[in-house]
Amino acid sequence: MTPTRFIDLNADAGESFGAWTLGDDAALFPLLSSVNVACGFHAGDPRTIQATIALAASHGVGIGAHPSYPDLAGFGRRVLEATPEQVYADVLYQVSAVSGMARAAGTALRHVKAHGALSTRAWTHAPTAHAIAQATRDADPALPLVVLPATHLETEARALGVPVVLETFPERAYLRDGRLAPRSMPGSSIHDPQEAARRAVTMVTQGHVEAIDGGVFECRPDTLCIHGDNPNAVEIARAIRDALAGVGVGVRPFAVP
Amino acid sequence: MTPTRFIDLNADAGESFGAWTLGDDAALFPLLSSVNVACGFHAGDPRTIQATIALAASHGVGIGAHPSYPDLAGFGRRVLEATPEQVYADVLYQVSAVSGMARAAGTALRHVKAHGALSTRAWTHAPTAHAIAQATRDADPALPLVVLPATHLETEARALGVPVVLETFPERAYLRDGRLAPRSMPGSSIHDPQEAARRAVTMVTQGHVEAIDGGVFECRPDTLCIHGDNPNAVEIARAIRDALAGVGVGVRPFAVP
Amino acid sequence: MTPTRFIDLNADAGESFGAWTLGDDAALFPLLSSVNVACGFHAGDPRTIQATIALAASHGVGIGAHPSYPDLAGFGRRVLEATPEQVYADVLYQVSAVSGMARAAGTALRHVKAHGALSTRAWTHAPTAHAIAQATRDADPALPLVVLPATHLETEARALGVPVVLETFPERAYLRDGRLAPRSMPGSSIHDPQEAARRAVTMVTQGHVEAIDGGVFECRPDTLCIHGDNPNAVEIARAIRDALAGVGVGVRPFAVP
Amino acid sequence: MTPTRFIDLNADAGESFGAWTLGDDAALFPLLSSVNVACGFHAGDPRTIQATIALAASHGVGIGAHPSYPDLAGFGRRVLEATPEQVYADVLYQVSAVSGMARAAGTALRHVKAHGALSTRAWTHAPTAHAIAQATRDADPALPLVVLPATHLETEARALGVPVVLETFPERAYLRDGRLAPRSMPGSSIHDPQEAARRAVTMVTQGHVEAIDGGVFECRPDTLCIHGDNPNAVEIARAIRDALAGVGVGVRPFAVP
Repeated sequence: MTPTRFIDLNADAGESFGAWTLGDDAALFPLLSSVNVACGFHAGDPRTIQATIALAASHGVGIGAHPSYPDLAGFGRRVLEATPEQVYADVLYQVSAVSGMARAAGTALRHVKAHGALSTRAWTHAPTAHAIAQATRDADPALPLVVLPATHLETEARALGVPVVLETFPERAYLRDGRLAPRSMPGSSIHDPQEAARRAVTMVTQGHVEAIDGGVFECRPDTLCIHGDNPNAVEIARAIRDALAGVGVGVRPFAVP
Repeated sequence: MTPTRFIDLNADAGESFGAWTLGDDAALFPLLSSVNVACGFHAGDPRTIQATIALAASHGVGIGAHPSYPDLAGFGRRVLEATPEQVYADVLYQVSAVSGMARAAGTALRHVKAHGALSTRAWTHAPTAHAIAQATRDADPALPLVVLPATHLETEARALGVPVVLETFPERAYLRDGRLAPRSMPGSSIHDPQEAARRAVTMVTQGHVEAIDGGVFECRPDTLCIHGDNPNAVEIARAIRDALAGVGVGVRPFAVP
Repeated sequence: MTPTRFIDLNADAGESFGAWTLGDDAALFPLLSSVNVACGFHAGDPRTIQATIALAASHGVGIGAHPSYPDLAGFGRRVLEATPEQVYADVLYQVSAVSGMARAAGTALRHVKAHGALSTRAWTHAPTAHAIAQATRDADPALPLVVLPATHLETEARALGVPVVLETFPERAYLRDGRLAPRSMPGSSIHDPQEAARRAVTMVTQGHVEAIDGGVFECRPDTLCIHGDNPNAVEIARAIRDALAGVGVGVRPFAVP
Repeated sequence: MTPTRFIDLNADAGESFGAWTLGDDAALFPLLSSVNVACGFHAGDPRTIQATIALAASHGVGIGAHPSYPDLAGFGRRVLEATPEQVYADVLYQVSAVSGMARAAGTALRHVKAHGALSTRAWTHAPTAHAIAQATRDADPALPLVVLPATHLETEARALGVPVVLETFPERAYLRDGRLAPRSMPGSSIHDPQEAARRAVTMVTQGHVEAIDGGVFECRPDTLCIHGDNPNAVEIARAIRDALAGVGVGVRPFAVP
């Protein structure tokens, strides 16, 4: 079926570090249209960043910077009570580093997406959200920020005029108010590739998905995120692509807003 | 005396880290025309980099990136047997980070200068020199590299077409073959501001300076480097400026080669 | 006046790192009876730890380990949402490292005191307090933990049978319920050495001190803490010692509980 | 065949870090009699160290500290020109940390073995070897150091009275003078489990092994080292154990010298 509409499919990438490997970027990139490249603060030494950019460019996949709190030991998954000024400088440093490395490789950064605890903190803490949005704008006013809808991160990005890319998670359950169901809640993660694929299709074609607490979560995603560090990430990505193709939806990088 | 010719005066800068302060940038910057900004690998957390760039811009001082081996505990002063591929990626990452932060502050990077052990390694080890020059060129082909004359670093930079800025050290003794006298040699460091100033004048106006082992060291510096972490760095900078002014030499950023 | 009773006087120490110096341990140690040695996570590379232990031993000052969240860039002053299991392992690692280095130097660790944000987190977060107390006990059941009275840290330490040393701050204002006045409150820090000394005397001889919100804060300190990173730390330490001496109170290491 | 003599079999362990896993300790430990636990400088965050010690204790495997240069990004495989004083303090810090964590777990450190580039540097650089031996002795005079025979590390350890455990590598080719064949030399690594097992038997029962450059390398190993990060490490360990068992040699921890 020839696609008549399109959606972006993104995953985190370049999360190896030195001698340590995480994820299988080589197997996953052919199935994605955008990747979020670790910038050295939670993962991604400079050689890994360089290799990840080269791999992404060879697959025509859109390259994003994926800045984090400085926390290698915690993989950026722990909230750190950094000041907004520190968050601003840390994000600008990381985005600049990956942006420059992309340019040196003959390509360019297409988006920014905050990683792990920095991202979840920004959903509910306006000063952190503002610092991320400001750093993104100061790095390049045309650079889009990938955000979870209906969070402080979306609000602050829009207030600063930062182009916004809305993201949903086919593998995560939602509450009816639009928040992700806490990981402690039974059913918060969807492990079955077919179920994730069904949810992806519903999100893209219906503009909503069932909420875990009843009712529906309304959404208009520009990009779907899958978790690249899942053991079955490749299988899930393939199931989502196939299901989307079956309803005439192709996978390609989001249009720059 | 109105200056009829000019020379650049540079020092390392932004070498604080988090709660730790090193050097007195605020006192020294008014006396310099270029600064080499630590990029986070031997010193310089992102907030410090941001503040250093702002201070440099406010004084009209040329901003350079000062990449290092990754070695906070050793302040980048210990040779690390990194592969050329690692050096390339590490340098490109650091230069990109500082370059992006300079652009975000409304200014721009004007040069690159390798720090500490990375620099001394590159003087005598061609693959390391090549990696640094290549990373500088890939960051921006117009970006000059500050080099010690007659080293592998100069040779490799010229071979790759990287613009070269030649540097001499008024506070350091030279051997007649152009190498810096080893620090273990008595008299290798000049501590007297007036003597440093006299040597600076001779270097700039005569094109040579006495070698510690007899004869003279011929040089045509584009920039003079002083050590910003000396307790009397401000006094030395002032003595050099005054002495140069007395012979009609002004201090201003080097012309981009 | 010959002292008829005694109190311990402690400060943080060994907070330099590599090329960076913080505090003036050499000037301050002669005035103290206990020091809290940074363990490498917020400050204190191994050479610094070694030198700090040697200096403490030469002055007969009691040596404590001062573990922190892993956060060099933030100097351990930022709360990090580490799990209790991570806090336990991080604290045990740091205490073990400094304890072993003390033994190698012919001396021994006398106490543990949590640093910065790890400490303030433990005041109000029982699982963090429990993890610190457990790690201290597992390092050595006889090792005392220095605690702020009336906090979760005191409660958890007592519950686990960890010997407890109660600490008060002559330079900090207290609320009547025993909590330190927030730093954002005017008057929360006492800068005048004579006032700090007067408060120290009141704390030790009267068992209380005026609270900033009216009434008094009752206390029975085993140790008084001064801030070693204050520019006038030496002056304050001397004023406190002199004032205590004037009322017959000597300064010496706390008795092991 | 009931064993009539015994040899130790060791491998590096605990080389994961935070979210990153390296090696398969759970599968390998049942086949070993000693393990070298990464101490945090090239791998091994505190939680990993704790888990590795617990796993080793549960298998009755001897626990060693495996100190490294501080180089997470390079996995401790790059020589760092640290001073002997820095090496001493770094090694003492790491050994102390792991020793204390072992004691807290109800077990004890049985040996020290330098990792990667720190080890190879110590083979040929006497001051580095001396620093490692001194740190081991200062940590505990009874603690043995595992050394490559006929290196500066053996010499310095013996000169300081540090108990010495001699190690050979069944998977590595030797030169006739006792040095390991450089990895750049064809045939320097043995990949076939049966060949590694045959060499292990020859080393233990004959006291020598064929050298790659002709003749034989004489050896009297106390322990055989296998590379735990090999994909077929488990297979090699099993082949070595089986072949040794077939000639009446059992595997158990070395006797403390």
